[in-house]
Amino acid sequence: MAQINENYLKLQAGYLFPEIGRRVREYQKENPEADIIRMGIGDVTQPLTPSVIRAFHEGVEEMSKGVTFKGYGPEQGYDFLREAIAKNDYRDRGADIHADEIFVSDGSKCDTGNILEIFGHNNIIAVQDPVYPVYVDTSVMNGRTGNFLGNGYYDGIVYMPCTEKNGFIPEIPEKRVDIIFLCYPNNPTGTTASKKELKKWVDYAIRNKSVILYDAAYEAYISDPEIPHSIFEIEGARQVAIEFRSFSKTAGFTGTRCAFTVIPKTLVAFTSDGSEKPLHPLWMRRHTTKFNGVSYPVQKAAAAIYSPEGKKEVRSTINYYMNNAKTLHDNLTKMGFRVFGGINAPYVWFNSGRGLKSWELFDKLLHEAHVVGTPGSGFGPSGEGYFRFSSFATHEDVLKAIERLKNLKWN
Amino acid sequence: MAQINENYLKLQAGYLFPEIGRRVREYQKENPEADIIRMGIGDVTQPLTPSVIRAFHEGVEEMSKGVTFKGYGPEQGYDFLREAIAKNDYRDRGADIHADEIFVSDGSKCDTGNILEIFGHNNIIAVQDPVYPVYVDTSVMNGRTGNFLGNGYYDGIVYMPCTEKNGFIPEIPEKRVDIIFLCYPNNPTGTTASKKELKKWVDYAIRNKSVILYDAAYEAYISDPEIPHSIFEIEGARQVAIEFRSFSKTAGFTGTRCAFTVIPKTLVAFTSDGSEKPLHPLWMRRHTTKFNGVSYPVQKAAAAIYSPEGKKEVRSTINYYMNNAKTLHDNLTKMGFRVFGGINAPYVWFNSGRGLKSWELFDKLLHEAHVVGTPGSGFGPSGEGYFRFSSFATHEDVLKAIERLKNLKWN
Repeated sequence: MAQINENYLKLQAGYLFPEIGRRVREYQKENPEADIIRMGIGDVTQPLTPSVIRAFHEGVEEMSKGVTFKGYGPEQGYDFLREAIAKNDYRDRGADIHADEIFVSDGSKCDTGNILEIFGHNNIIAVQDPVYPVYVDTSVMNGRTGNFLGNGYYDGIVYMPCTEKNGFIPEIPEKRVDIIFLCYPNNPTGTTASKKELKKWVDYAIRNKSVILYDAAYEAYISDPEIPHSIFEIEGARQVAIEFRSFSKTAGFTGTRCAFTVIPKTLVAFTSDGSEKPLHPLWMRRHTTKFNGVSYPVQKAAAAIYSPEGKKEVRSTINYYMNNAKTLHDNLTKMGFRVFGGINAPYVWFNSGRGLKSWELFDKLLHEAHVVGTPGSGFGPSGEGYFRFSSFATHEDVLKAIERLKNLKWN
Repeated sequence: MAQINENYLKLQAGYLFPEIGRRVREYQKENPEADIIRMGIGDVTQPLTPSVIRAFHEGVEEMSKGVTFKGYGPEQGYDFLREAIAKNDYRDRGADIHADEIFVSDGSKCDTGNILEIFGHNNIIAVQDPVYPVYVDTSVMNGRTGNFLGNGYYDGIVYMPCTEKNGFIPEIPEKRVDIIFLCYPNNPTGTTASKKELKKWVDYAIRNKSVILYDAAYEAYISDPEIPHSIFEIEGARQVAIEFRSFSKTAGFTGTRCAFTVIPKTLVAFTSDGSEKPLHPLWMRRHTTKFNGVSYPVQKAAAAIYSPEGKKEVRSTINYYMNNAKTLHDNLTKMGFRVFGGINAPYVWFNSGRGLKSWELFDKLLHEAHVVGTPGSGFGPSGEGYFRFSSFATHEDVLKAIERLKNLKWN
């Protein structure tokens, strides 16, 4: 008798974003004339830039001729891309990372889920709360947790509350934890972490032989020069951290698919009898056995963002979105919401200040303003009452959404 | 203390293909003048066809303009591709499969490894021997096996020997098994299964509540009209089978990356207390939580193979490779090897007939003829003494390789 993985039965309802999609489709079906503005899912709207498109076409053209055709590439990615990443994203910022420590993949969502495969089942996992749901859901699916509890948490995971009171910066948990998911700039709160703050975590991980899983998918949105873009800008991090990066938000690759994960060769974890094992060869084995590399033309397109022209273009797209973020931030503040994020991150996180729960606000905005956001409670219990707007919409839509929000009636 | 997944420590040496790559690189380094012909890894050499290239460029062009730009697509793939697959690969062949039962992915290697995630840990897994190493290695990594035994097998997996004696068609195992990996046309032996043969497995699975994981990555190479291309051509299969397909070998997508997995909505497995659960929603949850869809231009390119022009072009490339396979088959036979496969499959499987072990023949061919193949023992103990040539080389290389093989000295 073939048995299912019963951990899947512990999962709550739908994954957040499909659930939003479902509610929006249902409303649209009943109200076909409604012009719905989508600022829920963090999906980009601006096209790939000219340098990227040019390189993408070139890659496709190479696939059309026998002499330049590419079959299976290295699963870890082509050297031209890994070298460009190591130089531009790391060494130029003083972070000591080499090309052979970079694993190119088709997405950070995949990598942050799959990474648990190289860790044993006895690790205690800590996450920020609110949190990007993938870390938690994949932990559940992978059997790392107990059941879903009445309080909105899964048994066995250590949740670190991020609230207005602590400035959305979590405290070190009282209970010792083995694997720590950190996301900065944070999704969903838009908070960033200073070097001092990250140093605290690196020191903790060294002391406790823990591993930090650092999601830096939004690093390109950091405007303050004092804020680190990578955990590898912090001394000691090469011993204790894995970093996830993506071209999705940096360069509009959500539909093009390219990302990468950095595993320093000096990073170790342990066998149950306490002997040290480097994680690089484990992930190498996982990556080469269960993955076959990213499409060659896509890798060529990704590498183009590191050319001088590509860098300018990408910067200009990011500025476009950050102007949206500022517009949202300033106007929501004026409307009397309590507003966070949106300065070094593409997400604006706010509380209506009018006592509504997150999904209540979701339905109100959808039904009365035809504006879609993401309910904060979907990211965890500490997000209850909050709401996330993504700044990836077009500027016209952002302005239109603000006008509609201004006209909302509050009881 | 962060602990590793100790199952990885059970894995033997390198994954087969990286190990071949290592030996070839080493030899090439010591003999830089050697003109090495590669027929080891099953990687294609012919470029993408004109229709595919045209659609690929169009897809890239759409990404360059705001109005046609695509962000996140449906994780399961765009409807245009799923519909084309369901119609052309299934319904036109009388197999009752619908678009919403198709999950587009970036590779069958990924899918055949990842699929185990939706199954519990108590299932007994059966594989053909010799076998595509990914099924076994991912089972090991996933903790489905015991240790590697002295006889070349992992404890806990049921191996089904495929030998000259049984025509490389395995018998139903004596011990009841829950999950059965079957690959037809077979990699590495090039054998195919008749409808009657597959019916035997479907009936077994129905009787035992087992699930068949059917890898049909090479179905496009079937020339005999009596041989089924899909397990869903067999009555009852919708209850018990998952099928994996790929554009890699069909249309030269090894470096472009697109594949799909078919999970009928009528397929079930069981909870430990015996209640029936459909697998489609479980894989849907896995696919939407841990994967973000295939690059849009790649999906456009893949769909082009279903146009009338695309079909002709793809057929012509496959004929090119099958002419290689026939050339290899006939010439190796003339040289006194015992030769199998190569008629309905791109792989030619042979025994030197001269008492050499597989890796001995590998080294002899590499050193004395500068020809790379795949040692049969790398696919499992029953492959010992055998060798696989892939027909994906250029025809010129195949002819050159044959000339060199003719001149080999045998003791």
